[in-house]
Amino acid sequence: MAYTIAEIAQALGLTPVGDTGLKVTGVAEPALAGPDEIALAMKPDYAARLGEGQARAAMLWHDADWESFGLKAAILSPRPRYALADLSQMMDPGPGYGAGRHPSAVIDPSAELAEDVAVGPLAVIDAGAKIGAGSVIGPQVHIGAEVTIGEGAMIHAGARIGARVTIGKRFICQPGAVIGGDGFSFVTPEASDVEVARKDISGETARHSQQWARIYSLGAVTLGDDCEVGANACIDRGTIRDTVIGDGTKVDNLVQVGHNCVIGKDCLLCGCAGLAGSITIGNSVVLAGQVGVSDNITIGDNVIAGGASVILSNVPAGRAVLGYPAMKMDAHVESYKGIRRLPRLFRDVAELKKAVSKLTGND
Amino acid sequence: MAYTIAEIAQALGLTPVGDTGLKVTGVAEPALAGPDEIALAMKPDYAARLGEGQARAAMLWHDADWESFGLKAAILSPRPRYALADLSQMMDPGPGYGAGRHPSAVIDPSAELAEDVAVGPLAVIDAGAKIGAGSVIGPQVHIGAEVTIGEGAMIHAGARIGARVTIGKRFICQPGAVIGGDGFSFVTPEASDVEVARKDISGETARHSQQWARIYSLGAVTLGDDCEVGANACIDRGTIRDTVIGDGTKVDNLVQVGHNCVIGKDCLLCGCAGLAGSITIGNSVVLAGQVGVSDNITIGDNVIAGGASVILSNVPAGRAVLGYPAMKMDAHVESYKGIRRLPRLFRDVAELKKAVSKLTGND
Amino acid sequence: MAYTIAEIAQALGLTPVGDTGLKVTGVAEPALAGPDEIALAMKPDYAARLGEGQARAAMLWHDADWESFGLKAAILSPRPRYALADLSQMMDPGPGYGAGRHPSAVIDPSAELAEDVAVGPLAVIDAGAKIGAGSVIGPQVHIGAEVTIGEGAMIHAGARIGARVTIGKRFICQPGAVIGGDGFSFVTPEASDVEVARKDISGETARHSQQWARIYSLGAVTLGDDCEVGANACIDRGTIRDTVIGDGTKVDNLVQVGHNCVIGKDCLLCGCAGLAGSITIGNSVVLAGQVGVSDNITIGDNVIAGGASVILSNVPAGRAVLGYPAMKMDAHVESYKGIRRLPRLFRDVAELKKAVSKLTGND
Repeated sequence: MAYTIAEIAQALGLTPVGDTGLKVTGVAEPALAGPDEIALAMKPDYAARLGEGQARAAMLWHDADWESFGLKAAILSPRPRYALADLSQMMDPGPGYGAGRHPSAVIDPSAELAEDVAVGPLAVIDAGAKIGAGSVIGPQVHIGAEVTIGEGAMIHAGARIGARVTIGKRFICQPGAVIGGDGFSFVTPEASDVEVARKDISGETARHSQQWARIYSLGAVTLGDDCEVGANACIDRGTIRDTVIGDGTKVDNLVQVGHNCVIGKDCLLCGCAGLAGSITIGNSVVLAGQVGVSDNITIGDNVIAGGASVILSNVPAGRAVLGYPAMKMDAHVESYKGIRRLPRLFRDVAELKKAVSKLTGND
Repeated sequence: MAYTIAEIAQALGLTPVGDTGLKVTGVAEPALAGPDEIALAMKPDYAARLGEGQARAAMLWHDADWESFGLKAAILSPRPRYALADLSQMMDPGPGYGAGRHPSAVIDPSAELAEDVAVGPLAVIDAGAKIGAGSVIGPQVHIGAEVTIGEGAMIHAGARIGARVTIGKRFICQPGAVIGGDGFSFVTPEASDVEVARKDISGETARHSQQWARIYSLGAVTLGDDCEVGANACIDRGTIRDTVIGDGTKVDNLVQVGHNCVIGKDCLLCGCAGLAGSITIGNSVVLAGQVGVSDNITIGDNVIAGGASVILSNVPAGRAVLGYPAMKMDAHVESYKGIRRLPRLFRDVAELKKAVSKLTGND
Repeated sequence: MAYTIAEIAQALGLTPVGDTGLKVTGVAEPALAGPDEIALAMKPDYAARLGEGQARAAMLWHDADWESFGLKAAILSPRPRYALADLSQMMDPGPGYGAGRHPSAVIDPSAELAEDVAVGPLAVIDAGAKIGAGSVIGPQVHIGAEVTIGEGAMIHAGARIGARVTIGKRFICQPGAVIGGDGFSFVTPEASDVEVARKDISGETARHSQQWARIYSLGAVTLGDDCEVGANACIDRGTIRDTVIGDGTKVDNLVQVGHNCVIGKDCLLCGCAGLAGSITIGNSVVLAGQVGVSDNITIGDNVIAGGASVILSNVPAGRAVLGYPAMKMDAHVESYKGIRRLPRLFRDVAELKKAVSKLTGND
């Protein structure tokens, strides 16, 4: 697919400069760009490498001296990274799944698919599922019984959507994601060692021999509009009601969302984050990669947790936290500075003891 | 499916009160319950919200004043959470997989399936596999060659059971789990940087250029009875003998169990826990979410490791641990209190130094 | 498959001793070995248990007094663990997938498979894919459009290789791995809370309400020769160019490699490691289990990161690190010793304060 610089600029709501009729067929890094690719040079550091490639056009920052880079045309943007969102969507070659319904797909006759829904080879769609217009169900996907999926979904190869899950519009699901596995919920006839240990920090457990009875998950999962779920990520169904993910929230690869969690809108849960059960998370929360959250925790709006933070207690709205256990960012930085300086502190205290000992005559 | 309160109470071994002929068709949270749902109100806090819903019956704690909540009937339980295990099983709508063997499944003629085994669409069952009575093989599942699975298994969509794996009775396997991938085992011709670093804590590596030769996994995986494995969890095969998981042990989503591990009975390995190779774990051990265990570690019976603990040395039986590296719970709590108070400690020591300096005349 | 001790020794480049015509059909641990199995006893501790089993032959260390263990034959090795690589390959029973192309596989007519490529039941191979000689595509695998895979690949059940991914020779892919999911890349119209928080460690976030625009992944993934990817691991495609994994690098189960990462040769990324986006890693780097690496980090050659290290800043070549945040190994050990001794330090300082107070008369 080829676009002129003018067409791209118009789609992005930006102003083109130079030979705006120049056609490009792809996007590339400055040093690797061919003559028919638009180079992406969001800041001077990147633009400096334009000479190594053959780009004749580039996307640059808003006041870039584009002609100085030997370009024939350019698109200037006040926030090139944001412009990349639209540009990358224009240029996306897509997954290459075929159109229509592949004859090898197993679609229950009671499933209701909008007319234009594409279904890949060897996908399975169970009884009573409903899939909205414009959706693409990739190869080997499983859509469980009575699942509802809104319009415009893209469900990639081998994703598994369990029975009775409800998903909003424009859903994107990466390969191998599992939405609607059973919650991990077990109970012992008497108070278990874990229940005891939560109230007792002695470091000794009650040492019961304990067998686990299974609590079945009667709820499902509800995802809002504009959600995305990453490759091999898992979102468990709720015990009595649904686990809930709000509109616009994006869940990265290998993230675990436990049963009964209620996640707000426009959150990012980054790769390998692990959420135990019954967690409540507000809106616009960002959990960085590998963040862990203990069960029954509440996290307020606009919280940011840095990489691999382990959240063991509630976090109020608007707080940035880091560490294990997670602390307010400034306290964490201060404490960890202290840890690095501990060896010196031990030496200082040892010297003080000697000095004081001398002074008190207890030498 | 509708049950009377009397039927439910009888199934749960509990005593019903009030209009025990009242029928319910589902379970709900107090505030969300409809008139035909039994509300789950395990403690007074929850029961307080019964008025927001329409429940006419509820499951309550053992000495609850059930009539005060305006209910027509109730089931009183000394441990409602435990009663929920049976109740949720009764009410579970299940995954909605069809009965019988779907014609699209590819079942090797040499596989031995009990007569009533259900096999979902596009499942693959390889040569010599044996599957016990009452089992359900979900859509798109793969059962490898010579796998043995006991009676009553429920294998959800897209799970992968590798060749020669042996599994006991009443196995539950969530979607996308992989049992019997190859162990991650590599060796260099000479001692590798890693082998050197394990004995040398200088912080400098030996800087060999090293190529990894693969050690193939000749063993498989053996799971006992009543095991459960979570969505996208992975249990690797052993090198020479099988990796072993004991009866009643439950493995949550995205957990990794490395090659040669031997896990005891009735353990819980919670979401995202990562076990390296050749770990030995006793009975009734609970590893909370994201816990990591280094290779060749031994963990005794009844150990509990708190969320995201990183276990780098052996843990004796009956110990509760937390932290990175994991310490006995009480020591961890004490140490982390200390870390939070470090900035103050540095100030105190600085002041002491000044004071002592004055006293000694070295000002 | 039966081999004589002489045949095995020859294949391993080692010298057999004793009755070298003795035939064995498998490998076993000393205590569990049957009479037709070669026992693996790499050091005296293991050999001590030969008496518990029935092995007539064993693999032993180079100067072992093999006759003292009552063996009929032995293979002596200067590095038995290295010899195990070849031995285990000889003895590997394999996954039991059938030969040829299963009629249920859906192979696009434009895909180019070498003549001897085996394709398992219900695999899907999309348009334009190219697969090299001797490769095995397991059951229910998905190979996306225009994927290129070199000769000798073994792709296990249910792995997903996305469109346009390029893979070298002798690739091994465990079940459920996802290579070529989309990168997790989102941008807000104005600077997001995260962008602000990266420069501000106050612990308070900017509290913008923010909606995420998606940056599409136009790149794919390139893997070199002799790579392995573990079960349910995920390697995301790059934004503009490919995510790259070098020759000989092995990726374990449940590892996440984010978009745009460039990983060198002969690295080991162990189970549950999580790499954010745009990370550069040198050659012969070992990241132990659960290691996390923040985005845009550079890690030099021959770095070793211990279990669950969290790498938040660049690591120079040849360094061994540990901890959260990761520090040079020796500094980490020193700091953590300090943390364990903190309670005592607080007591010491309290006593010093009292003593000094007395001395200065401020009692």
